[in-house]
Parts: sequence; structure tokens; C-alpha cells
Amino acid sequence: MKKLLFPLAILIATFAQAQDDQKQIRSIYDAALTESEAYENLRVLCKDIGARLSGSEQADKAVVWGEEVLNKLGLDSVYLQEITVPHWYRGKKKERAYFFNEKGKVYLDVCALGGSVGTGMNQFISGEVIEVHSLEEIAEMDSNVVAGKIIFYNRPMDPKHISTFKAYGGCVDQRYSGAIEAAKKGAIAVLVRSMGLRQDDFPHTGTMAYEEGITKIPALAVSTNGANYLSENLKKTPKLDLALKTSCETLPDKVSYNVIGEIRGSKYPDIFITVGGHLDSWDLGEGAHDDGAGTVQSIEVLHLLKTLNIKPQYTIRCVLFMNEENGNRGGISYAERAIQEKEKHLAAFESDRGGFSPRGFSVNGSAKRLESIQAWASLLKPYGLHEFEAGFAGVDINPLKNDTICLIGLSPDSQRYFDHHHTDDDVFETVNKRELELGAASMTALIYLIDKYWKYPN
Amino acid sequence: MKKLLFPLAILIATFAQAQDDQKQIRSIYDAALTESEAYENLRVLCKDIGARLSGSEQADKAVVWGEEVLNKLGLDSVYLQEITVPHWYRGKKKERAYFFNEKGKVYLDVCALGGSVGTGMNQFISGEVIEVHSLEEIAEMDSNVVAGKIIFYNRPMDPKHISTFKAYGGCVDQRYSGAIEAAKKGAIAVLVRSMGLRQDDFPHTGTMAYEEGITKIPALAVSTNGANYLSENLKKTPKLDLALKTSCETLPDKVSYNVIGEIRGSKYPDIFITVGGHLDSWDLGEGAHDDGAGTVQSIEVLHLLKTLNIKPQYTIRCVLFMNEENGNRGGISYAERAIQEKEKHLAAFESDRGGFSPRGFSVNGSAKRLESIQAWASLLKPYGLHEFEAGFAGVDINPLKNDTICLIGLSPDSQRYFDHHHTDDDVFETVNKRELELGAASMTALIYLIDKYWKYPN
Repeated sequence: MKKLLFPLAILIATFAQAQDDQKQIRSIYDAALTESEAYENLRVLCKDIGARLSGSEQADKAVVWGEEVLNKLGLDSVYLQEITVPHWYRGKKKERAYFFNEKGKVYLDVCALGGSVGTGMNQFISGEVIEVHSLEEIAEMDSNVVAGKIIFYNRPMDPKHISTFKAYGGCVDQRYSGAIEAAKKGAIAVLVRSMGLRQDDFPHTGTMAYEEGITKIPALAVSTNGANYLSENLKKTPKLDLALKTSCETLPDKVSYNVIGEIRGSKYPDIFITVGGHLDSWDLGEGAHDDGAGTVQSIEVLHLLKTLNIKPQYTIRCVLFMNEENGNRGGISYAERAIQEKEKHLAAFESDRGGFSPRGFSVNGSAKRLESIQAWASLLKPYGLHEFEAGFAGVDINPLKNDTICLIGLSPDSQRYFDHHHTDDDVFETVNKRELELGAASMTALIYLIDKYWKYPN
Repeated sequence: MKKLLFPLAILIATFAQAQDDQKQIRSIYDAALTESEAYENLRVLCKDIGARLSGSEQADKAVVWGEEVLNKLGLDSVYLQEITVPHWYRGKKKERAYFFNEKGKVYLDVCALGGSVGTGMNQFISGEVIEVHSLEEIAEMDSNVVAGKIIFYNRPMDPKHISTFKAYGGCVDQRYSGAIEAAKKGAIAVLVRSMGLRQDDFPHTGTMAYEEGITKIPALAVSTNGANYLSENLKKTPKLDLALKTSCETLPDKVSYNVIGEIRGSKYPDIFITVGGHLDSWDLGEGAHDDGAGTVQSIEVLHLLKTLNIKPQYTIRCVLFMNEENGNRGGISYAERAIQEKEKHLAAFESDRGGFSPRGFSVNGSAKRLESIQAWASLLKPYGLHEFEAGFAGVDINPLKNDTICLIGLSPDSQRYFDHHHTDDDVFETVNKRELELGAASMTALIYLIDKYWKYPN
């Protein structure tokens, strides 16, 4: 009889626990959909501060804002982590690109890529355009052909990928390394098709690189409509001269900060679950989806835990990372200090894929951790979460990677992300309040489960 | 040995078939994301025709347009099915509602509900406002209290529902039956809080009912911001007079049409799989999500089958239903004729929940059919489809319900649907091209599987 009773008791206890979890997760979503501050926080970050590239005045304001917002939550501690950040500046004058066709002088919608050198304040450079579709294509070309020319990288994102991040991954080498490969062959500038699936007039900025010993040449993005138009013109007029002007420059590094707030763990205060987004953004638009959304969702995780009086066992640390966009100095410094301080990290969450309807999580950890998350699928399914796959979790938290930590990225629906990414169209109005709140609730729910059930180190 | 070989052969054949299906479904999505005409069709329907309420000139134009678009696909037959439709007209003059407070004369954003009587062309009616939150509340009130008053139904949609359709279902009785219940107690008009979760200035129209023998009183919707504002004012000034004006009227019924196109089945030409959306829309906005999206997606199913040279066993019939919004005469007539003609219907699909990222299907059929669809989950999962649940499938196809047919509704992400539903903000620009295309591909993929594997009648 005893033998029978024992498993029955376990079964009843397990069932009761599952019901508790169901109830708690329901209360997290209820609070997120009725009492969240995320949307109003996002409005202030986007409308009162706006675009906030590392080194800018707006980035400084965002740090002050982040600290204030965290201070209002009544956390156990709020503090700044000093870092130095690059300070690239687009310049006072709008970028220009034009050529002549049968209509006369035709302008393209362009912007400088982040980190690019300028052509000089009021100085155009011009040269014949060569359209290519890959770094390999330019690598195989003769220097005599390329020298003095402007290289136009025009490989579009492949619309057949269901995940738009895969389409982005298949193209972004043109933006990142295009100037290096073109300069090796003597090109004087590069123009890169914007990383977007929509056909529109928004040029998309984003980070690009130079290589020691290779000439630094100006690099610009052109809108998808502009790229198509230029390509059509090149078919009609293979020898076509393009004139470009950018006034961007790189200024000396500046001091900035990661902004951190903590709820101290009741049982394991020295073991951490980090949750973050990045506070900086590109200097176009308002950094609403990238990554105002992740910033306010990470703050909201702490707000929801406080609102619901959930007392975590581990310390839950919200980190508003600085400088994800052009250097990742915040993420790197945060990880370095974690090693210096011998901090123990159980898990780290990042939201940096837009404030869209959540679909699941991308998990970079041991097979055991992934299986543990997958085993909770039935608890998360009622909230539309269904993707629990191994994958990259986030740029800011990636430097924390070691044998024990589990890195977890929130995966929202990706279809519209690259309509807004790094453009003037990444504005508050394109974020839906409920979708934003559901993302915050989804991270909070998974943090609640991990905090309750996972043991450190594994 | 033979005993062993036989199951092995089945296993190999099954595996090969699953691979074929995987490949075919991949090709459907590839074509949808690269060769679809859905988005351009939607642009024309929204921008060149626009809002198209039954009985309107634009609805007539939409019928001509639908027939033309289907004719271009090279189908086996395209034809119109005549019906008569109600003809309600909002009137030439914009609706008005105002009251006085410390700021002076204050206007609310309102619109007449579909089917409402008007107050007269330039005639205001006015009365004291009573705010209520349910039909039950008004039913319990004394006629002496209600007589001569304007009833303001202000129960909001519950944001805690993850599916916004559940939140809508929990509120829409106020819009549909509010005028009847209020008139029973002698009220002179009703003002209903708009069915939306966003706080904004768009009033949402939608169908409302009268009852034989009960006075027909004017019924208007007020935006969520307007409802909140009025409610706040009523807290300060419980006796507050509201003036309302609407010039709408119901004109004689008109002739209109369901528009139908068919690919004839190679094996079972007399057994049908219907796929449809509704061609009519409300008279505000452009009917982009409701239901331009479903209209062009249903057309796109046939376009994709033709493009990929998929020859179905059953006849695939695309139906652009007329008059879903205020009468469902198209859906009812279609089902009546199916019975008259003794047509055999294997399945019917409807897309009428917006052109958002698809999540799965809502299935109204036998348990066996639902299980069959659920067994295909692994084939559909790579495309983000994960919800295969029993549920309502669609207003237009619902009259087809019998013991054999399986009704299937496309379920897109619902978070943003009621931001646009029945408002001036239901416009083409709010539909994402890829999301629209993924929905069309999802219906095509499931139709491909059903056509291949299901037997009639069960």
C-alpha cells in the first residue's frame, strides 16, 4: 500500500505545482495587459529622447532616463556601469547621391553607413558605377577594372526565407565588409542596397567595417526602390557616373554607461538571471523596435515581478546595454566584469528583434536546458508561444557565453522587422501596445519558471 | 521475410510521400513570396475601388473587378451568382455628437452603426445620457428612468484575452442588441463604445439589429477615447445632455452577386473545396484587412495552384462572397444553392480575420478531420503555423455546415485586427505584403493536402 501511495503523492504534488504555475503565468499576462508601463515608457524614450546613437547627447539623456525609470520601481539596487563608446557622427548635411539620365539629374535616397568616413562637408566624389552581387564577385575582379570606380552591391534579401533574419544574414556581408573588399581593388566608394524586404524609399543604415592597412572609402546605403532604379538605369547605360556626398566623421571616444537595476534573490543573491535590451539606437528614426522595445520590455520584467510580489530565488538583473549598434562595448564590458567579479550567471535573456507578437525563444545553452524549456511548452502555448529552438540569443548577452549559462533570445514574429530596422521609419507609431506587452510577459513567465526550477550550475 | 518486407515497403513509400509533400509545400510558399499577385490586387481593390458596402456603387465595381481578376487566371469557369442585398446608406452629412462642459461645446468622434435609422438630415436629437455596462443592466432599469434618455453602453473589450476575437465576442452584444434593449425602456437613442482595444479617435461601425414591434432608435458608435472622455464627464456631471445627429437611411434592396471561379477537379469534378473571403466591406476606410485581405488571398490560392501546375482531384472553387457585413445574403444564398443543386462539399475555407501573419487554422468539422489536420502539423510548422484547434471558421461559409463538410478558417495573429476593424483606419498601408502572402500560401498548402488525402464524404 505504501508503495502505491508514494507515487500517487508525487503525482498529486506535481499536478498541484503545474496548476500553481499556470495560475502564476496567467497573472503575469493579466498584469502585463492591464498594468504595464512598457508602452508609455517607450513613448517617452522615442518621442522625448528619440534616436540615441552612442556618444550622442540623446544617448546621455537615455542613460539618465533609464536610471530614473528603474529608480521608480523600488528595486534593491540601481547603478551605472561605466564604459567608453565610439562616437560616430553623421554630420550636419544630409547625404546626397545623384546621376544623370534622360530625365536630367536624378537623386537617390541614401544614407551613410555607420562608421563610414565622409567625402567632406560640401565635397562630392564621383565615379563610374559597377554593380556586383557578392563579395566574391568583387574579389575575382581585376584591380584595373575596379580602380577609381564606385561599387554598387545589389544582392537583395531572399524573400523565400520565412524568418526574415535568415534573409538578413544572407546579405549583410555586403554592408559590413563591402568597403574593405572594394577598397582592396582600388574602388573609391561603395553603395549598398538596403537590408530590407519592402520596396520603399527608406535607406537603412547599419554598422560597417574597415581593415587595418586598407584604404577607408565612403560607404552608403541606398533604398530598395533606389537600388532597383539605379540597376535599371545601368542596364540601359552601362557606363554611368554617380556622385556621392557624406559629411560623417568619427569623433573621439566618449564615456557612457550600461544602466542596471536588480531585484535581489531571496535564496541565491549571488547568482544572476540577466534580462536586457540595448539603450542605444541608430541615429535615424526613433529606435522604437530596435531596441526601444527590448529596453522597455526588460524594465517591464522587473515591474511585473514587483507588481505581482513575486520574490525570485536568484537575483534578477535588468541591464540596459549601451552601444550594441556600433561596437557592443556595453555587452563586452558587462561580460568582462562578470568574469572579474567571479559572478555566477544562471541565464541571460535579450529582447532585440522588435516589439512584435511573441512566437517563442531562441536558446543558446546546453541540450538539457533547451529540453527543460521545451517541457514547459504546454504552459506557454496559450499565449501564442510555440518556437523553442536552439539558436543565437542576442548580441549584448553573447559575450557572457560559457559552459554553464543559458542565453535566451525573445523571438517575436519577424515579418515586419526589416521594414523598420535602422531607418527613419523605426518610430513609436509602428509598435503595437499589446504585442509589446505580450513580449514582456513572455520573458517574465519564462524567468519565473527558470528561477523556480533551475539549479546552478546545471 | 515477406512479412518483414511489406511493412518496410510501406514505410519507405510513406517517407517518400512525406518528402514529396514537404517539397510541394515549400514550392507553394516560394511562389507566394516571389510571384504572388495578392498585394497588387489588394492595392487596386483598396485604392481604385475603396470601401464597398453592399448596395453601393463601389460594391458593383468590386464585382466587376473580381470577375476580371478571376478571368485573367485562365480558370475552367468564372461566373456570378445573383443575390439581393440590403442597401443601407450613411447619408451625405457627417454624424455629429456634442455636449457642453467647462470648455464649452465638445464634439465626440462618432459614426452611425450599420443599419441604424437616422435622426434626420439636419436634425439633432438630444437627451440626458445614462451610462451602462451591459444589456442586463438596462433590462433591470425602470422605464421611468430610461424614457427619453440616451443610453451609453460603455463596457470595454477585456484586454486580458490573448485572442482579441474573444474580447470582441465579450462586448459586441452592446452594439448588436443595444438599441433593442434600450428602446424597450423608452430610450431615444444609443451610443456604443467602439469595439477596439486601442485608445484612439476612430469610431468603429458594425452591424446592429432592430426587433419587430420595438421602436427603431438611432444607434451610434463613439471612439474609445471619446467614450473615456464622456464617462469622465459623467462622473463630474451626472446629468449631462448629449445631442446626436445622423442622416443615414435604408434604401430598397439591390441586386448584387457572389463572384465565383473554379479549377475543375481531375478526378472528382462534382465534389468541391470552397475557399473564400467577402468582397463587400463597411463604408469606412478601404476594407483592407476586412476583408480585402481574405478576398485577394482566396484568389491567390487559385493563382498559386495554376502557377505551380498543381492539378487538384476535387474542384477548387474560389468564392468572393457579397454582403457578409450586413446580412450575409451571399453566404446564405451560396449554401442554399449548394443544397438545391445537391452539390457535394468536402471542405470550405474562409479568410476573414485580417491579413496578418498566419498562426494556424480554426476547424469546424468532425474529430477525424481535425485530427487529420493536426497530423500534418510537422509539415506546416516551418511556416509558423501552430494552432490547429476546433472553432468557428467564418460567417460566409458557416451556412454550408452539415454532417460531412469540414469548415476551416485561417487564423492570423489577432493582436492588431481590432485596431482597424470597421474604421477609417482599415487601409491598404496597414497590410504587410509578406504577411498577406504567407496567409495565402498557408491556405493553399492545406488545400493541397486535403485534396490529396481526404475522401468524400469522410
